[in-house]
Amino acid sequence: DFAKIDHHRHLRTGFPEVIWGPGKTPDQIAQIMTVMAGRSPVVMATRIESIVAEQLQAQVPHLIYYPMARICALQTGEIERQGIGVISIITAGTADLPVAEEAAITAQLCGFSVQRLWDVGVAGIHRLLSHRELIGQADVLIVVAGMEGALPSVVAGMANCPVIAVPTSVGYGVSFGGVAPLLTMLNSCATGIGVVNIDNGFGAAILAGKILRTAQKIMNYEL
Amino acid sequence: DFAKIDHHRHLRTGFPEVIWGPGKTPDQIAQIMTVMAGRSPVVMATRIESIVAEQLQAQVPHLIYYPMARICALQTGEIERQGIGVISIITAGTADLPVAEEAAITAQLCGFSVQRLWDVGVAGIHRLLSHRELIGQADVLIVVAGMEGALPSVVAGMANCPVIAVPTSVGYGVSFGGVAPLLTMLNSCATGIGVVNIDNGFGAAILAGKILRTAQKIMNYEL
Amino acid sequence: DFAKIDHHRHLRTGFPEVIWGPGKTPDQIAQIMTVMAGRSPVVMATRIESIVAEQLQAQVPHLIYYPMARICALQTGEIERQGIGVISIITAGTADLPVAEEAAITAQLCGFSVQRLWDVGVAGIHRLLSHRELIGQADVLIVVAGMEGALPSVVAGMANCPVIAVPTSVGYGVSFGGVAPLLTMLNSCATGIGVVNIDNGFGAAILAGKILRTAQKIMNYEL
Amino acid sequence: DFAKIDHHRHLRTGFPEVIWGPGKTPDQIAQIMTVMAGRSPVVMATRIESIVAEQLQAQVPHLIYYPMARICALQTGEIERQGIGVISIITAGTADLPVAEEAAITAQLCGFSVQRLWDVGVAGIHRLLSHRELIGQADVLIVVAGMEGALPSVVAGMANCPVIAVPTSVGYGVSFGGVAPLLTMLNSCATGIGVVNIDNGFGAAILAGKILRTAQKIMNYEL
Amino acid sequence: DFAKIDHHRHLRTGFPEVIWGPGKTPDQIAQIMTVMAGRSPVVMATRIESIVAEQLQAQVPHLIYYPMARICALQTGEIERQGIGVISIITAGTADLPVAEEAAITAQLCGFSVQRLWDVGVAGIHRLLSHRELIGQADVLIVVAGMEGALPSVVAGMANCPVIAVPTSVGYGVSFGGVAPLLTMLNSCATGIGVVNIDNGFGAAILAGKILRTAQKIMNYEL
Amino acid sequence: DFAKIDHHRHLRTGFPEVIWGPGKTPDQIAQIMTVMAGRSPVVMATRIESIVAEQLQAQVPHLIYYPMARICALQTGEIERQGIGVISIITAGTADLPVAEEAAITAQLCGFSVQRLWDVGVAGIHRLLSHRELIGQADVLIVVAGMEGALPSVVAGMANCPVIAVPTSVGYGVSFGGVAPLLTMLNSCATGIGVVNIDNGFGAAILAGKILRTAQKIMNYEL
Amino acid sequence: DFAKIDHHRHLRTGFPEVIWGPGKTPDQIAQIMTVMAGRSPVVMATRIESIVAEQLQAQVPHLIYYPMARICALQTGEIERQGIGVISIITAGTADLPVAEEAAITAQLCGFSVQRLWDVGVAGIHRLLSHRELIGQADVLIVVAGMEGALPSVVAGMANCPVIAVPTSVGYGVSFGGVAPLLTMLNSCATGIGVVNIDNGFGAAILAGKILRTAQKIMNYEL
Amino acid sequence: DFAKIDHHRHLRTGFPEVIWGPGKTPDQIAQIMTVMAGRSPVVMATRIESIVAEQLQAQVPHLIYYPMARICALQTGEIERQGIGVISIITAGTADLPVAEEAAITAQLCGFSVQRLWDVGVAGIHRLLSHRELIGQADVLIVVAGMEGALPSVVAGMANCPVIAVPTSVGYGVSFGGVAPLLTMLNSCATGIGVVNIDNGFGAAILAGKILRTAQKIMNYEL
Ligand SMILES: Nc1ncnc2c1ncn2[C@@H]1O[C@H](COP(=O)(O)O)[C@@H](O)[C@H]1O
Ligand SMILES: Nc1ncnc2c1ncn2[C@@H]1O[C@H](COP(=O)(O)O)[C@@H](O)[C@H]1O
Ligand SMILES: Nc1ncnc2c1ncn2[C@@H]1O[C@H](COP(=O)(O)O)[C@@H](O)[C@H]1O
Ligand SMILES: Nc1ncnc2c1ncn2[C@@H]1O[C@H](COP(=O)(O)O)[C@@H](O)[C@H]1O
Ligand SMILES: [Mg+2]
Ligand SMILES: [Mg+2]
Ligand SMILES: [Mg+2]
Ligand SMILES: [Mg+2]
Ligand SMILES: [Mg+2]
Ligand SMILES: [Mg+2]
Ligand SMILES: [Mg+2]
Ligand SMILES: [Mg+2]
Repeated sequence: DFAKIDHHRHLRTGFPEVIWGPGKTPDQIAQIMTVMAGRSPVVMATRIESIVAEQLQAQVPHLIYYPMARICALQTGEIERQGIGVISIITAGTADLPVAEEAAITAQLCGFSVQRLWDVGVAGIHRLLSHRELIGQADVLIVVAGMEGALPSVVAGMANCPVIAVPTSVGYGVSFGGVAPLLTMLNSCATGIGVVNIDNGFGAAILAGKILRTAQKIMNYEL
Repeated sequence: DFAKIDHHRHLRTGFPEVIWGPGKTPDQIAQIMTVMAGRSPVVMATRIESIVAEQLQAQVPHLIYYPMARICALQTGEIERQGIGVISIITAGTADLPVAEEAAITAQLCGFSVQRLWDVGVAGIHRLLSHRELIGQADVLIVVAGMEGALPSVVAGMANCPVIAVPTSVGYGVSFGGVAPLLTMLNSCATGIGVVNIDNGFGAAILAGKILRTAQKIMNYEL
Repeated sequence: DFAKIDHHRHLRTGFPEVIWGPGKTPDQIAQIMTVMAGRSPVVMATRIESIVAEQLQAQVPHLIYYPMARICALQTGEIERQGIGVISIITAGTADLPVAEEAAITAQLCGFSVQRLWDVGVAGIHRLLSHRELIGQADVLIVVAGMEGALPSVVAGMANCPVIAVPTSVGYGVSFGGVAPLLTMLNSCATGIGVVNIDNGFGAAILAGKILRTAQKIMNYEL
Repeated sequence: DFAKIDHHRHLRTGFPEVIWGPGKTPDQIAQIMTVMAGRSPVVMATRIESIVAEQLQAQVPHLIYYPMARICALQTGEIERQGIGVISIITAGTADLPVAEEAAITAQLCGFSVQRLWDVGVAGIHRLLSHRELIGQADVLIVVAGMEGALPSVVAGMANCPVIAVPTSVGYGVSFGGVAPLLTMLNSCATGIGVVNIDNGFGAAILAGKILRTAQKIMNYEL
Repeated sequence: DFAKIDHHRHLRTGFPEVIWGPGKTPDQIAQIMTVMAGRSPVVMATRIESIVAEQLQAQVPHLIYYPMARICALQTGEIERQGIGVISIITAGTADLPVAEEAAITAQLCGFSVQRLWDVGVAGIHRLLSHRELIGQADVLIVVAGMEGALPSVVAGMANCPVIAVPTSVGYGVSFGGVAPLLTMLNSCATGIGVVNIDNGFGAAILAGKILRTAQKIMNYEL
Repeated sequence: DFAKIDHHRHLRTGFPEVIWGPGKTPDQIAQIMTVMAGRSPVVMATRIESIVAEQLQAQVPHLIYYPMARICALQTGEIERQGIGVISIITAGTADLPVAEEAAITAQLCGFSVQRLWDVGVAGIHRLLSHRELIGQADVLIVVAGMEGALPSVVAGMANCPVIAVPTSVGYGVSFGGVAPLLTMLNSCATGIGVVNIDNGFGAAILAGKILRTAQKIMNYEL
Repeated sequence: DFAKIDHHRHLRTGFPEVIWGPGKTPDQIAQIMTVMAGRSPVVMATRIESIVAEQLQAQVPHLIYYPMARICALQTGEIERQGIGVISIITAGTADLPVAEEAAITAQLCGFSVQRLWDVGVAGIHRLLSHRELIGQADVLIVVAGMEGALPSVVAGMANCPVIAVPTSVGYGVSFGGVAPLLTMLNSCATGIGVVNIDNGFGAAILAGKILRTAQKIMNYEL
Repeated sequence: DFAKIDHHRHLRTGFPEVIWGPGKTPDQIAQIMTVMAGRSPVVMATRIESIVAEQLQAQVPHLIYYPMARICALQTGEIERQGIGVISIITAGTADLPVAEEAAITAQLCGFSVQRLWDVGVAGIHRLLSHRELIGQADVLIVVAGMEGALPSVVAGMANCPVIAVPTSVGYGVSFGGVAPLLTMLNSCATGIGVVNIDNGFGAAILAGKILRTAQKIMNYEL
């Protein structure tokens, strides 16, 4: 009653409803998971702190916790392989890893292949340039950066695929909890960048997944 | 000397450099256009007011002006058809048209097919629901909205393709020149939305184009 | 002396003064409650954390605590039934419940009938549309939403009664603790929406109550 | 095609769609008015500057312009009297009149009775207190104020009816174009206040009208 | 060495340097107090939490702590009576007391007479009006208010003396930790109001003291 | 009817109501001036652009215009000398003169003596130090500064009288139209500073006048 | 009298006072220039629009106007060569030229050598990389960028000299008139960057000049 | 793998990569330190709380912790003396010490000489003036200030060397965690100031070091 699960979301959008953890009691999360478990091969909850994960694992058998990504998942069936290409995820620094892993684990649990490239921020541009080929050949890129968030601008100038930019709350002072990199990404003079909310690795993964799925859908027009 | 044209951008990113009009003198724009004309089948400049367009047309022969989209284009060759699917563009209101047309004309000049659906904002939800099929079958959606900018949230809940959300500066008071719809779009509880800068119809079109082109690229893996 | 209770507020405005908990010591709250108890059939304090509630219950006999709503109430007489119609309260998500319950309990303690509808946010619009009748027939609606706060816009387009919009601090990143849904609600292109402060379920309930009471008052003109 | 008129809005919400002028060309406004004229006894457009009004009057016969309220109206039938009570409108200063008149004319064109009380701001509180009776007996109050916007707080403490607060952009420096009075109104420690966007006299009138109409609707339950 | 005490401040400005507690270690505060003790009849430190106060009292004999005002004071001589008139301090609510007491204790320790009037906010304007005489006859007024901060506007319209307005961080949502009442006070349409930083009871007291001292100074011109 | 003149303001607060020009038509201003003229020896209107002043002078005989201060005044009687001391006004730069003159002319028209010191900003501190005596002996100081607004901090550290700080909109970039100097003044680590709204020379003058008048009032206690 | 020229600034800081044009009448500027002319080999005024420049040239003989830089200069003696190295100035785009030229002309008029490199923004990183040597060998760099302002981060990662970053107001939407690139530059994860106000080419040039002069000063310690 | 250390940074920029502590686990920091230790005579990590420092010291032998500066350093070789001149560091207050010490220790560990001057804020300007000579003769100045941050303006008016301004988060209310002093410093009417992020003592030290190193580099041109 406190939750109306959107069971048709998978049909409409190609992805199941995912539980957003904050503001829900562990009991509420556990109940929603249990109800959803029968309907979907994977049930996920995001933004789960480790202490909450332990409470959930006590109530929900077989629940897996990904601590870096802060995701809980209940896998009741085989995860079907989705899309053809690969989702490449890049971070500017080491401190951006939790957000990047939220994206990576979400994508993997939804059936997509993921490629990781960590800590190649613009202050040492050679680190990025030495992966020029990877970037030039990517199918879809998720670029995760905090502080000044300049990485997506440089990457989008080197890539011919869509770039999803994820600002993170990594930084201090006038980074304003991620507002500064968000503005950088929205104002980018490189084109073809779609931006998501601060720290929203989850949303970036779903968008990347939809891009790969659209590709498959369009292919069928041809064949 | 005042401009270093990025002639290889087309090779790297699949799209040519496009001239951003504001802050350049008409003379500078005309010179850049002339230099680029020999290299690319279409040379575009965006954010051109009609009075500037007239000055440009006096200097650059065969220049076409799209007044609603505020785009000048010099077409020196045949525009090659790009991608397979269609870019569907939706607006919440009539006042959002200039931004939507910037997206539409950009996409068309880059070789993509475009479908337009104007004035279906959420205050009369039946207007949107009567196009449920169009939305459900779209390949990629650009959703343009000012004021509270709620349209992309509702559309993304009905679509299985990527949604590009474009906030516009249409509104008054606490719309803050488009900041309010921008925040709405970034905070959307519907997933799979990539957001661009306020009034950035151009950027939305390039991103949509890259999404369709990625589809084509991935197809080649299969074949 | 530290508090000048406004005993005539009920006479002037139709509602008693209600104690706002934050920034008061438990002792101060208990003293004010005791003084007010003799004068009003119900004495309420809002924003009371459970630990404070326990301290209050130790000092004030018969005090009831509503944990979800974070309200303490001392009921010394029969609550008189107010108004004729019903206050309908809707939330976008599960995490908005505490604010919605603050509204619901306040309304009930003031003598109004309440109808609850939880978790029908716009990302799955069918959840809302399946309650189209309830919304079309409502007397007054309180709509509670965090994140992008788009729900009141859609609801107000379906209802012919006044809509009171309550933004919540549910969200992260650029939800800015509820500022984003607040802006959404103030900029709504649907009309007939009155907005209250972030998380202010209490104020929404009083406004809804005043709307129903006005109805009664006007009736007397006719009769 | 550039506009999808919401002809059923009157049925759903009790009020017709009203044309928001800014961002539309005079031609677009005139076309929409002409299409709507056959369907509704009154067709209104708001935020029309006098120079645009003249262009419209040249195209649309019998169009009336209210310069203080900046409203154009085409009255093709008798305006039916709505509601039973009266909408009382109060301003803090003389400079708030355009917003207050937008509310007053909107309400009158929708069939409601209006009572006006101008320039009774809180810096000379006796001006307000001398209308204590009017405020105490009002059915619904619209309170319009710029600068610090303190008037609704004081009025709501004296009234037992709903108060709709309209912040105006009157002021300078840190009034931030109306943000300061908006914050004042949202933070009011007086209760029962619903706030609308800055300068939104139109929205305040529709909300006030819905409140009076709800009263009528509820009355029918009794009878 | 970590602190250069401004021993001449009393000579230049009429008030001794006062220690601002936050960001200093208890050791640093104790050392500064000890050095200053020989030079000034009263040594004060503000913003001292009770736990820090205990540590200070362990090191500095005879140190007095005022918990509501969060002030520590070391009184080594007789406090000389300053000024002729009285500083009247008014609060809007009970939760504003800590800030008001910071002002009151500061003023008293500097030798001024203080009059207190608590909890007379504008939502029940009769509470204020019943002290009309006190306000009309005051020498200088300090008005302390959080939430919407409307009290100084009303008070300044009733008083002929200078009004010092102190916004407090009491409130929630869009009170933004005191920014909303600050804006209200700066935008006041009543005149003769000087505003200080949020929660700055200390600064308000010094300004009020300077006003009374100036009065005395000017008197000497006459005599 | 559009204006309720507060004829008793002089009695209550010691100063007459002054007309704020913006948002009023010249006709409205002229009418209010004419009505007030019989009641008060001086009638003032502030923020009057020269073009409006000419229209007013055509309607209101004997009206004087102070172009630098943008004040119109109608002097129908002798201006009574107020207070005993002098109001000293200091600016940081030449561009701050309009605001400083608004303060100076207001004060003079209200009967106070004024001393002017222009262009002594902190970037060349010797300019200020060479007036150390003037500052040390002042009765009340109005300090006007734009850009970073540091002047009041330095002045308040040298003076023993109250300092009224007026931020101006002089500056560019992150001066944000005067917000930066406003913040500087509110955060000042020098004490005894009361701040008014950006560019509010008028309000500063009234506050300074009230401070000098308080001196006179207190003197009577002694005598 | 309206201006206290700081004749010793050259002695104290090594640079003469420079006239900031905005907010001064052409008469005031001309008077200040004339007074200063006898004292300094070069007298400069910044932010002079061409129409003002013409008025100044009519009053001040031999005045030179630099239209791109918006600087007026009166050269009455030989400009002495300052420093040893060179100030290198880089822009991200063509629209940043006015700010870059303000820096370049200021530096040249103060006696420094300048090297210009325009339009090498990060969206086409090869444009920058092809000047790797120039950057690696620079003595001091001024980097001018609007929109997302990422260029200084990349440049500072390639240079071993101090970098002065100048954000410009070039951009739209959430560039917020230059706030976005300002934040980018302040948050840079590359180190050794000093930031100046938005569009402040003048200030950047003075800082660069001071850096080169310091070098000379230190050299004398050695010799 | 989680970190790509930029081993060539020293070659390119003259300074080694420094580890930014926040957002990294102690294990990650310890691993990075160990890897870097063989390559650089000093390995530093900044923003290390004392509790983290203890964990690091348990894993990394010979690690030194500077508690006031919150820096951990591993010195494996002799620190080579850099530059010729001295970096002078000034603070406005005692609470600014942690930031100033971050600058001082960073500079010393990089081989530079440092001179410290604490607590000479502008509220007692004589404290600053008594060090006029030190300031006039400095090679490069780092000025650290919170609250209103006025100190760099005054210092830059007295110095002929570059000034690096560091705003701190010391303050309350509208200091907004250091935004207010940041704005002050960026808007300074004194010239030759480069600003860094709030609390960024580290960045200020590197910039100061680069300035002194540039001096040395330029000297070689001469010799
Ligand atoms: N980390 C996340 N960030 C943003 N949205 C999320 C996240 N995790 C889940 N969601 C979305 O949040 C919604 C669920 O909200 P609720 O009904 O409160 O559980 C779903 O629509 C999800 O798609
Ligand atoms: N949750 C709430 N949100 C906003 N206002 C409240 C709330 N609870 C009580 N109030 C109001 O707060 C005022 C009491 O403030 P105080 O004098 O500090 O107790 C009364 O006017 C109440 O109507
Ligand atoms: N474009 C500019 N940006 C910032 N400061 C400037 C500029 N031009 C001149 N100044 C400074 O402005 C001050 C002059 O202000 P004023 O006394 O109003 O002429 C001097 O301290 C100059 O160093
Ligand atoms: N206190 C600090 N403030 C700003 N940047 C820093 C600080 N300490 C280290 N850095 C920089 O942060 C970067 C390291 O980021 P990461 O890869 O996350 O370790 C390096 O480029 C350092 O130069
Ligand atoms: Mg790194
Ligand atoms: Mg429409
Ligand atoms: Mg839900
Ligand atoms: Mg008035
Ligand atoms: Mg109270
Ligand atoms: Mg000057
Ligand atoms: Mg370019
Ligand atoms: Mg100190």
